Amino acid sequence: MDTKWKQIDQYAQQWVKEAGKRIQETFQTELTIQTKSDRKDLVTNVDRETEQFFIEKIRSTFPDHHVLGEEGFGDELSTLDGIVWIIDPIDGTMNFIHQQRNFAISIGIFENGVGMLGYIYDVVHDELYYAKKGEGAFLNDKQLPRLQPVSIRESIISVNATWITENKHIDPNVLAPLVKEARGTRSYGSAALEMAYIAAGRLDAYITMRLSPWDFAGGLVIVEEAGGIVTNLYGEPLNLLGKNSVFVSKPGLHEEILQKYIHH
Amino acid sequence: MDTKWKQIDQYAQQWVKEAGKRIQETFQTELTIQTKSDRKDLVTNVDRETEQFFIEKIRSTFPDHHVLGEEGFGDELSTLDGIVWIIDPIDGTMNFIHQQRNFAISIGIFENGVGMLGYIYDVVHDELYYAKKGEGAFLNDKQLPRLQPVSIRESIISVNATWITENKHIDPNVLAPLVKEARGTRSYGSAALEMAYIAAGRLDAYITMRLSPWDFAGGLVIVEEAGGIVTNLYGEPLNLLGKNSVFVSKPGLHEEILQKYIHH
Repeated sequence: MDTKWKQIDQYAQQWVKEAGKRIQETFQTELTIQTKSDRKDLVTNVDRETEQFFIEKIRSTFPDHHVLGEEGFGDELSTLDGIVWIIDPIDGTMNFIHQQRNFAISIGIFENGVGMLGYIYDVVHDELYYAKKGEGAFLNDKQLPRLQPVSIRESIISVNATWITENKHIDPNVLAPLVKEARGTRSYGSAALEMAYIAAGRLDAYITMRLSPWDFAGGLVIVEEAGGIVTNLYGEPLNLLGKNSVFVSKPGLHEEILQKYIHH
Repeated sequence: MDTKWKQIDQYAQQWVKEAGKRIQETFQTELTIQTKSDRKDLVTNVDRETEQFFIEKIRSTFPDHHVLGEEGFGDELSTLDGIVWIIDPIDGTMNFIHQQRNFAISIGIFENGVGMLGYIYDVVHDELYYAKKGEGAFLNDKQLPRLQPVSIRESIISVNATWITENKHIDPNVLAPLVKEARGTRSYGSAALEMAYIAAGRLDAYITMRLSPWDFAGGLVIVEEAGGIVTNLYGEPLNLLGKNSVFVSKPGLHEEILQKYIHH
């Protein structure tokens, strides 16, 4: 990476750690919880304050960068021209509220639409997953080994029970047979952490039906640098300016699931 | 607790921690993995060695106690008379193999069928959940607050996608509407940890269709001491000598789910 990107990386890592410390400090205080698009879509004052923290830092240090943030304090973007930070201050807000764990700060930094840097910070466990384009993916400074192919029968797939019950986004009968063939299924409730777990080899695939760019931007850079594949459920590239189904997987497994269960 | 039980508790805690340390040491070595009842039912040399470690300790220190263990090195029991240790050396073996996290050592100690002591040790995070009959439930020496009622609509329920797809144990249509009404669903792949999370308030209910006594014995004592309810799916007490469906929940929520979804 050139000096410019090394500097952006240094600031980003510093801010992510600082934001994590601030989030931990709020554990002793009372949360203000509100709903957004529906009764299951939650937001707290800590989500908002954390996004504002990042935006202030970015605007004062890199005034020509753009920011797309879950809580809407960033810019309204219609293109990915230039350098764009895509930020989810707390991915897994429901877990943050109920569990005070299993949530993460997620950031992806793109240049003209190309993922350059990705960060997923599991605050409570102090685990920072990150990647730099062309230099690999890391967990707390230890390089993650390149992901290897695995068969469906030996895989653990992250898929929420919602997508196997009647819902607006997918026929429950599409994924049900995959659940049976896989060795096991899990669901952690944070897209960012689920993508980090794939990069770290703890999950083999992750399927979900409706994510926004901030949910997957950090994970996209990290998983691809670890050798995994990130597409929508139909094998197409993700749209960084809209909602997507998301299908993240080890190589080989990605093609096997697409052919056997999705294209069928 | 009287002196006898205080002593048993001291030994149990000491052995659990020691076993956890031994498990961590195996992370650098290669596992021997075999299947048991079916291709998804896995066991490793570490499960076996850990169970043997406990059995040697118990037999030499408490020769009149009985042991029921997942890997079969304990006693063949047809009653719960006397003092019985019910042990799962590694609950969540699939996670242990794939993730090297999200597994636990689980122990319940019963006297004439009454749960006296329970331990669930999340080895990797060094979190020991435990309970002593009549003295409450604890996480690493901090007493867990008594569980309070919650509505289905505000609850996070742990239920694996398997039980919403066609399977041998339950009609998938029974739990599917519960998945929709709940605020969210999760699945962690370790019954012991899922019960520990209920005791700690991170999950509100946990439903699964087929567990053995070693999967839930430790959690039974801990959840009940935290004020939660542990039954089979039909609201009946669990059989500590056979397989069971298991339904663990906060008070109030337990009755609401039973009435609205199970008895219907």
